[in-house]
Amino acid sequence: MKLLDKITPLEQDFSKWYIDVVKQGDLIDYGPVKGTLIFKPNAYGIWEQIQFNLNRIFKEKCIKNVYLPLFIPEKLFNKEKEHIKGFNPELATVTMAGDKKLDEKIFIRPTSEVLFANLFKNSVESYNDLPLIYNQWVNVVRWEKTTNPFLRNREFLWQEGHTCHSDPLEARQFTKNMIMIYNKFLRNYLAIPTIVGKKTSHEKFAGACSTYTIEAMMKDGKALQAGTSHYLAQNFSKQFDIKFKNYKNVNDYVYQTSWGISTRLIGAIIMTHGDNRGIIIPPKVAPIQISIIELFANKNPKIHELALQIKNDLSKKYRVFLDESDKSPGYKAANSEIQGIPLRIEIGPKDIDNNTVTFVRRDTQEKEIVSCNELKKNVKYTLDEIHINLLQLAEQRLEENTIVVTDYETFKEGIKNRKFVIAPFCCSGKTEDKIKEETGATSRCIPKKINKPVKAAKCIYPTCKSTTNRYVVFAKAY
Amino acid sequence: MKLLDKITPLEQDFSKWYIDVVKQGDLIDYGPVKGTLIFKPNAYGIWEQIQFNLNRIFKEKCIKNVYLPLFIPEKLFNKEKEHIKGFNPELATVTMAGDKKLDEKIFIRPTSEVLFANLFKNSVESYNDLPLIYNQWVNVVRWEKTTNPFLRNREFLWQEGHTCHSDPLEARQFTKNMIMIYNKFLRNYLAIPTIVGKKTSHEKFAGACSTYTIEAMMKDGKALQAGTSHYLAQNFSKQFDIKFKNYKNVNDYVYQTSWGISTRLIGAIIMTHGDNRGIIIPPKVAPIQISIIELFANKNPKIHELALQIKNDLSKKYRVFLDESDKSPGYKAANSEIQGIPLRIEIGPKDIDNNTVTFVRRDTQEKEIVSCNELKKNVKYTLDEIHINLLQLAEQRLEENTIVVTDYETFKEGIKNRKFVIAPFCCSGKTEDKIKEETGATSRCIPKKINKPVKAAKCIYPTCKSTTNRYVVFAKAY
Repeated sequence: MKLLDKITPLEQDFSKWYIDVVKQGDLIDYGPVKGTLIFKPNAYGIWEQIQFNLNRIFKEKCIKNVYLPLFIPEKLFNKEKEHIKGFNPELATVTMAGDKKLDEKIFIRPTSEVLFANLFKNSVESYNDLPLIYNQWVNVVRWEKTTNPFLRNREFLWQEGHTCHSDPLEARQFTKNMIMIYNKFLRNYLAIPTIVGKKTSHEKFAGACSTYTIEAMMKDGKALQAGTSHYLAQNFSKQFDIKFKNYKNVNDYVYQTSWGISTRLIGAIIMTHGDNRGIIIPPKVAPIQISIIELFANKNPKIHELALQIKNDLSKKYRVFLDESDKSPGYKAANSEIQGIPLRIEIGPKDIDNNTVTFVRRDTQEKEIVSCNELKKNVKYTLDEIHINLLQLAEQRLEENTIVVTDYETFKEGIKNRKFVIAPFCCSGKTEDKIKEETGATSRCIPKKINKPVKAAKCIYPTCKSTTNRYVVFAKAY
Repeated sequence: MKLLDKITPLEQDFSKWYIDVVKQGDLIDYGPVKGTLIFKPNAYGIWEQIQFNLNRIFKEKCIKNVYLPLFIPEKLFNKEKEHIKGFNPELATVTMAGDKKLDEKIFIRPTSEVLFANLFKNSVESYNDLPLIYNQWVNVVRWEKTTNPFLRNREFLWQEGHTCHSDPLEARQFTKNMIMIYNKFLRNYLAIPTIVGKKTSHEKFAGACSTYTIEAMMKDGKALQAGTSHYLAQNFSKQFDIKFKNYKNVNDYVYQTSWGISTRLIGAIIMTHGDNRGIIIPPKVAPIQISIIELFANKNPKIHELALQIKNDLSKKYRVFLDESDKSPGYKAANSEIQGIPLRIEIGPKDIDNNTVTFVRRDTQEKEIVSCNELKKNVKYTLDEIHINLLQLAEQRLEENTIVVTDYETFKEGIKNRKFVIAPFCCSGKTEDKIKEETGATSRCIPKKINKPVKAAKCIYPTCKSTTNRYVVFAKAY
């Protein structure tokens, strides 16, 4: 085991802080191919909790899990022209198997719209078969030039849902419902508040009719797109000939949606809640929720007895780790912090006399002496409090750093100061490119609701003459 | 929805029966690249149950889940010479990303020993860090020439565990423990009895010191290797320089194991329990455990009320499906059967009068009228009974079709009649090749125990003069 190295203060260099936290938190190692990651137990454990809880929500919504192949033949992929434009440069391509050259190039899925389209074509015959609501948890590959752990990797893990509907309204409603499910999930499980909105046509998924997004604010003020839901309309069904007989017995093409969240959420957790001691994992998705540390256990064997008993008691309901290594208590405590374990329970000689233990919260560093008789109640209360506190801090930061502006100078100033800047915008792609060039900001979304009163105004970009009541969130983004 | 096509009787053509069952059971579709599969909800749901239950067992054993990359650079792969011999011809190879040729070939993992070796090299320093016990649930790719759904595909899903130990005895014991965990898991969850044993050196995993296996008998008498556990000794650690300081502060190479089960278990379920009506899914891993079907519900609205109530009641503990489509009850019942749902509950007009429902078991086709007041108790009992019945039938078949022989004529006769033939064997690779050539059988394992008394005898192969007390199971195999 390595000594706990120092973490660069986040105020000093946020990017360096992020990499330090990722490395020190025992979250990842780098894979042997550049830009790939090894998810160690502390990172993969978060993903497992996300998966477990989201699956439970999915099952309530009658979403069924499937698994589609990793491989897409070139010809099939090329069927969806719009789609390719966005992805072709990033595709990892298999050209050989063993020593033999393949007859056709095979792409590794960057996303699976064309594979689902192909499946749906064979599965759907009548309105009776619809809606068809599938999801898969898989690895996908995009050959990114610059990579950053969790945020942008050549291989990452995600869930991608794909649905077929007989009715366009139902499909669009489903698209919107999914983004709201993600929004709620991030609040309730990751303690991350997000702005829900629609992407401008410039920023929407290639091949979608509209894209809905949840945008989160990281501690450096940059935006992170945390989940998307696409209304695909008939873009794929017409290309792939996914027809069904409607209730009038007339052929129509299905209306589709797709939606996903990925392991970049682990990056979002780090940059939303982390501090200069490392990652802080929200209790509901923490692989270890409670660590137990014995102080001077060699002085009193009852300390170990109590630690074991507490571990066994709490393990029925929580994910608990009793560090029984021969490291010092100080080292163990530092290790528990740097790994982001939300609650630490320390047991020392005095506690044996007083029938107490000490709670140490990872988020506030607060210590509290708790009676053993009220342990369970207090564990539940404290874990809930940690979640609430993390969420409130993040909400407050989002609130304080979001401004509504109507003139370009204030806009630029806002972006420079790493704010989310909401401004009236014409939504032209060319104007968006210019704003990006001049400020480094991209449009994040047309928000579903704005907390401040707004009225129709001239587009924020000086040379644009149009007036609009459409306000758009701009920010620098990951 | 397609009409329920017929299934070829298994007595007539087992291979055709298998493919029919797979297709009709709504288990798979074929992927667009030859030899790849789409796991539809009924198949992926089995895998999810396997994963969920095995994960629970793994966690009790302190096995931690991780995720390692899909990609292995050629140079890294080539470090392990033994390994390559077994896999090189089957490797899918990425040579391009976008339009650019890569500097180095990248292989898609056929298994991840070399990646874990690379990770362990960076993770292990002292005996204090050991044992390190990791597992991952991933897709792997092997470019097989001939494929068969679930049994042999170019891409499949599996779990692969990899461990490092400071002590060779501990590592070997761990290898053996894992094969026993698999053996128990197959009995308790899949209702599949297996023969536990060690592979001959001819059949062991390339790169392993020894391989332990569980071998199951399919309904056509062929063997299916259902799980393996490898003692790797220091084969990888020496090649990859995975060193640790032992308690005497002296450098040593770690001792390793690896072990896995895969989606071929779904094939094993089909060929162990299936009948001429399709797959029968053992209750513990069935995606849907109970289907509820209303008979003549239009005649009495109380039928639907009762069906809904039962669904809600049972859903708290079981995976339940109430078929509310406008198909006929006969169609629904056939569909429930062909999908292998273990228990069907039918509710008709008479049941409303009598406060009863009818249970129909998928395994025995037995019908039983059950009082609504004793529903829950009966559901539990019946599902347990189905598991026990499936297991007993499979055990009986395995028992009846396993013979011990000491002369080559009876051996050949046994193999011809699709028996598991246990015979004294010298364990020479060359002799194994000859037996395979002459009979089509391969050595499955040196069984841990044999239920019949055996004594030292001459090797089964006529021209081999050696005498041995090592008895080996031979069979034709998938």
